Amino acid sequence: MLPTILDLSSLRAAYQSGLTPLDLIEDVIARRAASTDPAIFITPTPDEDLRQAARDLMTRAPEANSLPLWGIPFAVKDNIDAAGLPTTAACPAYAYDPVADSTVVGRLKAAGALVIGKTNLDQFATGLNGTRSPHGAPRSVFNSAYVSGGSSSGSAVAVASGLATFALGTDTAGSGRVPAAFNNLVGIKPTPGLVPNVGVVPACRSVDVVTVFAGTVGDGVAIRKVMEGYDAADPFSRQAIPAGLPASGLRIGVLEGDEREFFGNADVEALYDAAIERAKSLGATIVPFDYAPFRQAAELLYNGPWVAERLAAVKDFLSSNADDFDPTVRTIIEGAKAYDAVAAFEGKYRLEALRQKTKVEWTKVDILLLPTSPTTYTVEDMLADPIVKNGHFGRYTNFVNLYDYAAIAIPAGFGSNGLPGGVTLIGPAFTDDALAPFADILHRALGAGMGKDRTAPLPEASRVAPLDDGFVPIVVVGAHLTDMPLNHELTEPGGYRVKTCRTAGDYRLFVLPDTVPPKPGLIRQPGFTGNGLEVEVWALPPAAFGHFVQKIPGPLGIGKVVLDDGSIISGFLCEAHAIAGAQEVTALGGWRAYIDAKKANSTA
Amino acid sequence: MLPTILDLSSLRAAYQSGLTPLDLIEDVIARRAASTDPAIFITPTPDEDLRQAARDLMTRAPEANSLPLWGIPFAVKDNIDAAGLPTTAACPAYAYDPVADSTVVGRLKAAGALVIGKTNLDQFATGLNGTRSPHGAPRSVFNSAYVSGGSSSGSAVAVASGLATFALGTDTAGSGRVPAAFNNLVGIKPTPGLVPNVGVVPACRSVDVVTVFAGTVGDGVAIRKVMEGYDAADPFSRQAIPAGLPASGLRIGVLEGDEREFFGNADVEALYDAAIERAKSLGATIVPFDYAPFRQAAELLYNGPWVAERLAAVKDFLSSNADDFDPTVRTIIEGAKAYDAVAAFEGKYRLEALRQKTKVEWTKVDILLLPTSPTTYTVEDMLADPIVKNGHFGRYTNFVNLYDYAAIAIPAGFGSNGLPGGVTLIGPAFTDDALAPFADILHRALGAGMGKDRTAPLPEASRVAPLDDGFVPIVVVGAHLTDMPLNHELTEPGGYRVKTCRTAGDYRLFVLPDTVPPKPGLIRQPGFTGNGLEVEVWALPPAAFGHFVQKIPGPLGIGKVVLDDGSIISGFLCEAHAIAGAQEVTALGGWRAYIDAKKANSTA
Repeated sequence: MLPTILDLSSLRAAYQSGLTPLDLIEDVIARRAASTDPAIFITPTPDEDLRQAARDLMTRAPEANSLPLWGIPFAVKDNIDAAGLPTTAACPAYAYDPVADSTVVGRLKAAGALVIGKTNLDQFATGLNGTRSPHGAPRSVFNSAYVSGGSSSGSAVAVASGLATFALGTDTAGSGRVPAAFNNLVGIKPTPGLVPNVGVVPACRSVDVVTVFAGTVGDGVAIRKVMEGYDAADPFSRQAIPAGLPASGLRIGVLEGDEREFFGNADVEALYDAAIERAKSLGATIVPFDYAPFRQAAELLYNGPWVAERLAAVKDFLSSNADDFDPTVRTIIEGAKAYDAVAAFEGKYRLEALRQKTKVEWTKVDILLLPTSPTTYTVEDMLADPIVKNGHFGRYTNFVNLYDYAAIAIPAGFGSNGLPGGVTLIGPAFTDDALAPFADILHRALGAGMGKDRTAPLPEASRVAPLDDGFVPIVVVGAHLTDMPLNHELTEPGGYRVKTCRTAGDYRLFVLPDTVPPKPGLIRQPGFTGNGLEVEVWALPPAAFGHFVQKIPGPLGIGKVVLDDGSIISGFLCEAHAIAGAQEVTALGGWRAYIDAKKANSTA
Repeated sequence: MLPTILDLSSLRAAYQSGLTPLDLIEDVIARRAASTDPAIFITPTPDEDLRQAARDLMTRAPEANSLPLWGIPFAVKDNIDAAGLPTTAACPAYAYDPVADSTVVGRLKAAGALVIGKTNLDQFATGLNGTRSPHGAPRSVFNSAYVSGGSSSGSAVAVASGLATFALGTDTAGSGRVPAAFNNLVGIKPTPGLVPNVGVVPACRSVDVVTVFAGTVGDGVAIRKVMEGYDAADPFSRQAIPAGLPASGLRIGVLEGDEREFFGNADVEALYDAAIERAKSLGATIVPFDYAPFRQAAELLYNGPWVAERLAAVKDFLSSNADDFDPTVRTIIEGAKAYDAVAAFEGKYRLEALRQKTKVEWTKVDILLLPTSPTTYTVEDMLADPIVKNGHFGRYTNFVNLYDYAAIAIPAGFGSNGLPGGVTLIGPAFTDDALAPFADILHRALGAGMGKDRTAPLPEASRVAPLDDGFVPIVVVGAHLTDMPLNHELTEPGGYRVKTCRTAGDYRLFVLPDTVPPKPGLIRQPGFTGNGLEVEVWALPPAAFGHFVQKIPGPLGIGKVVLDDGSIISGFLCEAHAIAGAQEVTALGGWRAYIDAKKANSTA
């Protein structure tokens, strides 16, 4: 019996227990047929094609879960090519039959995933609300009067209603995040360039990003990892070097004062405040920051020359088929004709000037925590004022790709009206992996299920592994301990203390003669039975660790130190010859105790 | 007696010997008055103002050389603000009196340097030849029939004719490099964003760079270091992290086949080939590469939407004062009106697609060595065909700022016609410092003087310090030696071998029991008198070194190893407890000898 939400862990477990991809596909076909929202798909994969894809997979890779996404059903936003299905961008006259998969769909298929259909969207991905489509407006799975969010509307609803394990969206202004917020989903918005755009209909090519909707952060990240990686055929693809975040004491920037704008939606405001409280209870340091230079960049995306990228993407089609456009989409795209190349460069100058202002804010915080969308609207209200109300949705999303950030949108719970809200964690470029563990625990602390199933437990198997920030741990023994004279050599390059602990029992500690400041020598002597020595584990960025090791004077060096829990960590050791005649202080239990004793003696 | 070329070292020595800034300024005034090129300056600093500046400096900092550029005379291209002198950009109707120094001039003045005047340029820095100015065309100091190069024409000629120690240029397409080539000078072209542009009249704001003309690489780099550093008031200023280059075995990319284009100038072609030979003789590995994706980007700068940045910079002035423009400059800038915002973004797409192609080439080479300009022309020839012939000069320079590279232009000697040629070393972003040592030795190997003095020796004091590439040296003893099983752990992250050498005599070497692959344990025992052990020194990037240390299993670790020349370098040591009962192989002289002996035994 499959759960309502077809999360990755549950499906894998079912496969392990004997379910076959063909069984699963029959279930998906039935779910799809029973769906109450008629606007999710533009082109569902035909039932028989789906069955054939499942059979092909079982031939290609007969063993259950023998591929990373073996038999995992997914939906594809209809501006992303999937061979065998037309790409329409929600504009029937624009439709074409792609000769090949997009890079991302190709990678997902190679990993065993099965395409269940092409989903509805705001035409040409121009919108954040989901109503700008000739195929109708998908609705929030929680209230069919309300918009689903967009532009990746059908993709979000497909996952939230249990038709697919995950779905691909695209995100220029916020299209991979806003629909996540409105449907109690996770939206993984990679750093621009991390995931290739080859085979994706451009919205704003310089800032478009393929995204993932999923039930959990762990699922979304696992899927993103299948999709990511350099593709030279995409001009904006990048050879990414993952960026780290502190593993503890994360400083999280939150809105304050006049920058807290929810357009009257007290429910979403309360959900945002509750998310901040959860973050705090999970150990984060909450830091109000100045949102102004982020908001001002957000305003540039539509009220600036970047809209010309939308025109660049469709200009030939527009000149021949203007009447085939959604009227709102056409109005927006034709607005780009007002911008000349001078305006394009002036927009860039403005953005870069604003980016300089954000640098001051980034010195205060490690990541941002913002409402995903400050409010939501009914389909009726949206259609009555489509540009202004759509703009409200983008208030906290539009700047993210312009500034080259990574983001993960997570659910934030439900308001009194039964509608969900969301929050987004935003980090500097290529913190995609580094953001995930905190996003996951923040999501898990909420306890609001996945998609339309508000009581679904988040599977343990999808938990994101404890933060590995890429920092190198190092055991320090003496003058580098907290508050000791050389501790600044750890803090200045961005190091942080992981814990205070003890070595295994077979270490001995000596006072090295003639060192300034005084330094200890730690020596392991197998067979020696002491009580271990108090040490601290610190973590340093790899390059800083390299420089640190480089600067250590002999007879000290960095070897491996065994702790009393059996773990083995790089740390300070001393060449044996140097302790000849040195005072042993092992019995004091550590260097701090020795220093304290010395001080006590000198003041006595 | 001051030398013809007022290089930094000679001036400092003169000051040390009792010359005063006022003496120097009198000499500069005399030189300026005797100059035979009437087109160098637009606004020379008045004699009395110059004297006053020298007196002010002597009051502010009485001691000789007590500031980094104490009493050093410099010229400023007239598109860079220097308070007290008008900024005209070589367009009299555009002139304004700046209320403050540009950031760079302010920093140079604070360091003690003295502004001797504002120099001529191709109007609005639009050109590479030096003829586009109502103030006349400065000439190559070697032949007054020939162009000086531009747009920083007056600045280059001022330094090359001995009027100033250095001069500021700006460089968008190559304006800080081409005039260096035509006047036997060094042109330091920083990575975009390293040196702030606050107070500089923009040409193409997103790619403009302030440059330095000087007699030696050492002088130019020293001056750049005074100018550089983040300035939040410049939207394109960046917080730079210096990038490294290998300290030995530099792979240098050179032109090949059809990409060798000198427009019939066999002299410059021969000078280029000779520069390649010199680089090879200095230990570089010469690697032909595909210049096409660089050339294609070069062509974009003028034949693409970037010209709209020039229009953006002057559009209000152009609309009121079109007739005040140089006709060629006006034609170029007005051409920008043909580009709309769509074209601006399409240009960006094209550039990024080309950048992807360059990545393949960068896997083959560390830096590029290109002709600075492939040819030169007389003023008469240039004026007869000003756009096409100017374009020739930019063939090997125009792509550099678009691609975010650092460059140093150096002299390449003289052709049979007595005219100089130049070559440019080009490296990835922020290799500004890393490029300098090789540029300096390549320049010194030429022996063609400085500026108009073809026999001037390059002062020893301006020699660029031996390459510090930021790599961390590490002594390896066993399985990491060249051709040994773990050597790939050094080569894969970009490490290189520095040398094979011996430890000091008080080290002993043991065979660690039960290690796969077999590993040695090196132990220092003061008092032991052996012959030392053969080891290798490798160099690793800091982060790679950090990861490397992190992966070393106990009982091995990284301490400090003393070599037989007394130097102390990070390297492999072993915890003393681990050699209990281990076989000692000190007498064999090193790990390689032990492995060879073992092999000989097993095959015997």
